[in-house]
Amino acid sequence: MVQRNKFNINNEKDMIDFSINYSPFKIPNKVFDNIKIGSKILSLYPSYYANSVIKPLANFLNLKSGNIMISNGSTEIFFLIPNIFQFKQVLLLLPSFWEYEFTILLSNIKKHFLRLSYKNNFKLNIKEFEKKLKKVDCVYICNPNNPTSTYIEKEILISLIKKYKNKMFIIVETYLLFSRDYNKRTLSNFASKHNNLIVVSSLSKIFRIGGLRLGFCIATKKNINLLKAKKNPYSLNIIAELILPQILKEAHYLNKTRRFILREKIRLYEEIKKIKWLKPFEPVANFILIKIMDDKVTLSRLERYLERKRIRIRRGDVINGLSNKYFRICVKTQKENNLLIWALSEFK
Amino acid sequence: MVQRNKFNINNEKDMIDFSINYSPFKIPNKVFDNIKIGSKILSLYPSYYANSVIKPLANFLNLKSGNIMISNGSTEIFFLIPNIFQFKQVLLLLPSFWEYEFTILLSNIKKHFLRLSYKNNFKLNIKEFEKKLKKVDCVYICNPNNPTSTYIEKEILISLIKKYKNKMFIIVETYLLFSRDYNKRTLSNFASKHNNLIVVSSLSKIFRIGGLRLGFCIATKKNINLLKAKKNPYSLNIIAELILPQILKEAHYLNKTRRFILREKIRLYEEIKKIKWLKPFEPVANFILIKIMDDKVTLSRLERYLERKRIRIRRGDVINGLSNKYFRICVKTQKENNLLIWALSEFK
Repeated sequence: MVQRNKFNINNEKDMIDFSINYSPFKIPNKVFDNIKIGSKILSLYPSYYANSVIKPLANFLNLKSGNIMISNGSTEIFFLIPNIFQFKQVLLLLPSFWEYEFTILLSNIKKHFLRLSYKNNFKLNIKEFEKKLKKVDCVYICNPNNPTSTYIEKEILISLIKKYKNKMFIIVETYLLFSRDYNKRTLSNFASKHNNLIVVSSLSKIFRIGGLRLGFCIATKKNINLLKAKKNPYSLNIIAELILPQILKEAHYLNKTRRFILREKIRLYEEIKKIKWLKPFEPVANFILIKIMDDKVTLSRLERYLERKRIRIRRGDVINGLSNKYFRICVKTQKENNLLIWALSEFK
Repeated sequence: MVQRNKFNINNEKDMIDFSINYSPFKIPNKVFDNIKIGSKILSLYPSYYANSVIKPLANFLNLKSGNIMISNGSTEIFFLIPNIFQFKQVLLLLPSFWEYEFTILLSNIKKHFLRLSYKNNFKLNIKEFEKKLKKVDCVYICNPNNPTSTYIEKEILISLIKKYKNKMFIIVETYLLFSRDYNKRTLSNFASKHNNLIVVSSLSKIFRIGGLRLGFCIATKKNINLLKAKKNPYSLNIIAELILPQILKEAHYLNKTRRFILREKIRLYEEIKKIKWLKPFEPVANFILIKIMDDKVTLSRLERYLERKRIRIRRGDVINGLSNKYFRICVKTQKENNLLIWALSEFK
């Protein structure tokens, strides 16, 4: 499991951190107006299964409360799933998100991997996917995928989920939350009706609140009850419980983030494409995967150069299924992105 | 699982809550001085396995970091233990603490119960205990026990742990943290050397911070590694991580609490003993179990009467192994305790 760097944000004054896939915008301060850390607030126990804040989240997602489970980050859900469903064989895509991999690698489940091909710009080959899927009980898909920023169309996933009813689909939509079309594109409504689909999301990235440990999953009532039966019902802290409903009210902030990402990721992609020794892959999410095309440029040299410019990137060789010819950057503010473009252009 | 009342502290202005086993004293405000809730703090991810705060806790406990695991409340540990050690048969004492019972009741483990006898003032009968122990792989003991406030001497437990090396002892010391002799009485040092003992503690009660979700366990390095291997390494929130080292510095506050509890629990016990229709059991922890000795007094009538006096107690019939002839009260401030004594004396 990649250890997150605790100080990646703390040192923001010094370093511009393109390595963490956070929203570029801080949540409005008014969210915290009535939440003052002190002995009184901390003495309050969180509610049973975070029940007191299920309703605002259900409204936000346009779903029923019974189809949602709030969790200690998405990570808590990734630890629960193998323990509850006891899969024998699981399919993972490579390169991909490390969190659920960690929980599966820990278990005795047999792992199958489908490598997303560079030649296909890391897009999924459905034929190959179906061939691999037949061998397993369960598949994990991050959609959009991290670190490739590729996306599998909703219609394709729905037809697969309908076709393979005896395979469990775990679909991670953490980065879909950045999409202006989230409501149209999410599989959450479908997940609330089909027992072979669980949609998992973290709120850490879209709201820049990794420290709060807030995640959720969406599934049928039957699956939610199975998950709850083995879940610590008091895993959410009281600050998270108090802040969640306030954050969800900030529709303007969320829309601003989504509109900005839609525009800025394309601009950043187009600008990087102009740099000859770099090949960015077209991003769907709020981050871009980039390949170093010049054999003479090593990732370590590039990383050291960027660090001197106070820029931090995510190295490809710490991501499962990538090499040291790749790196990942997050879409940040226009000014910060311009600095990155300038630094990359000036390299050598 | 008993659902904790979210508002038991929030309504403190209205109700005096003797039902939750919290310390009577608020943590000093200076603990929170440098922790202001806002977008910056919340954007910080907690450290891997809370490693950044293991050292201050290890110093506080006089132990090595490698023998400690910090957790999302003690509850997270109770969920991990059955999953990791895969016991076939477990021994539980009745009446007892509900949290670990819940996690065991969920599993397929065979449960054996040893009823602590009223005639013996709910103290453990060692002969009976050893007879039951022979049938199981593991025993859970809350020491001091909740709700009986009874205590098993350290020397007795050590001799049992040494004698039954193939039985796992899970000992919960949450309420031992209230003892002035905590350092002498805790089994933590012993737990760091013996593979058949895990000591679990919650910091919720001693510091009144149930909302932070802070607990820990102490075990051999081997057991800590087994636990960590299936633990969500990011289950602690950043506020808990920032506050923990500050709280542990408050030696004066902690000593004051411990001295006060030592004196006040005896006074409260002696005063309740004077009330003819009540039988309190001699308390070791910061709470007292009380039996209603008058057949004409029902718990519901007493509860309604006390509620009119703005006093809340914990009913015996919501605790596994007790009946509606019992209730539990926590040691609160002198003034609050006097009000309780007065209200109980005036009853009827």
